[in-house]
Amino acid sequence: MALYSERGYAQTTVAEIAERAGLTERTFFRYFADKREVLFWGAGALADLLVETVAAAPEGVAPIDAVAAALDAAGELLAERREGARGRAAIIAENTELQERELIKLASLAAALAATLRERGVREPAASLAAETGIAVFKIAFERWIDEANQQDLSRLIEDSFDELRAVTAER
Amino acid sequence: MALYSERGYAQTTVAEIAERAGLTERTFFRYFADKREVLFWGAGALADLLVETVAAAPEGVAPIDAVAAALDAAGELLAERREGARGRAAIIAENTELQERELIKLASLAAALAATLRERGVREPAASLAAETGIAVFKIAFERWIDEANQQDLSRLIEDSFDELRAVTAER
Repeated sequence: MALYSERGYAQTTVAEIAERAGLTERTFFRYFADKREVLFWGAGALADLLVETVAAAPEGVAPIDAVAAALDAAGELLAERREGARGRAAIIAENTELQERELIKLASLAAALAATLRERGVREPAASLAAETGIAVFKIAFERWIDEANQQDLSRLIEDSFDELRAVTAER
Repeated sequence: MALYSERGYAQTTVAEIAERAGLTERTFFRYFADKREVLFWGAGALADLLVETVAAAPEGVAPIDAVAAALDAAGELLAERREGARGRAAIIAENTELQERELIKLASLAAALAATLRERGVREPAASLAAETGIAVFKIAFERWIDEANQQDLSRLIEDSFDELRAVTAER
């Protein structure tokens, strides 16, 4: 990722990334489908953490609380990585294809969360609504977190966004 | 779009689409950037309707109510087009690129709604939360609407999903 920041994403080749990482190109492609995927390397681990946390929530916990617990776990996982997250966001912001990939990853996270809630017996549309609004909360909190002007923790911003969401929806 | 349903999206060429529509290829490309865009032809009108409805909401209306009014207007616009929407969804479901384009259009709708709310003086993160959750409600209601098993109106399903959203978020 450092290479993308130094030279620009479009100008960096897989050969250069592999060299910097001390890998052959062949080994690179064993781990990543393409150079875009380098930026989404942690997405699988994040998805697993979210799904496992929702699946492990005590029986009877409200769907939105199970989702909030999962996002809180994600907040802790990411807590020490603010600088990296900022660099990554700056690269993504300059490339439409990467923005698309990011949207797809977020949509997959929401779909995985909704499926896990359904396995816990949550009916539709409640499962999808809890999952989609949870991901919306996460996305908005994450954008505030990587804003240079912001000093708050990601977990705190997620909690704030949930409070704000409840206030926003209660108005209707 | 009929051609996509008959022959499959991947197998249909721009030349064939233009011929069926009685256009030259050159004229086709004056209206559409590529063959994907044919399926998103109404998206601009839908975005305009949503933005204009939010902008025209009376002063002092809660952000989520302004968004709900906009989605209700969208529900009425689409009401008579269920069959077309089903055919279109079936084409999109079979093609990853089209699914990506659909996600991008939904994300742009949310961004446009949030910007319109900010122009009305709504602060962040309330503006983005109202916009993102509104689009999540719309997406979920739309998926239920095009399900063959469902007989309810889109406007009714949107209203139901808002009720469910309030119930879901109140649990936290």
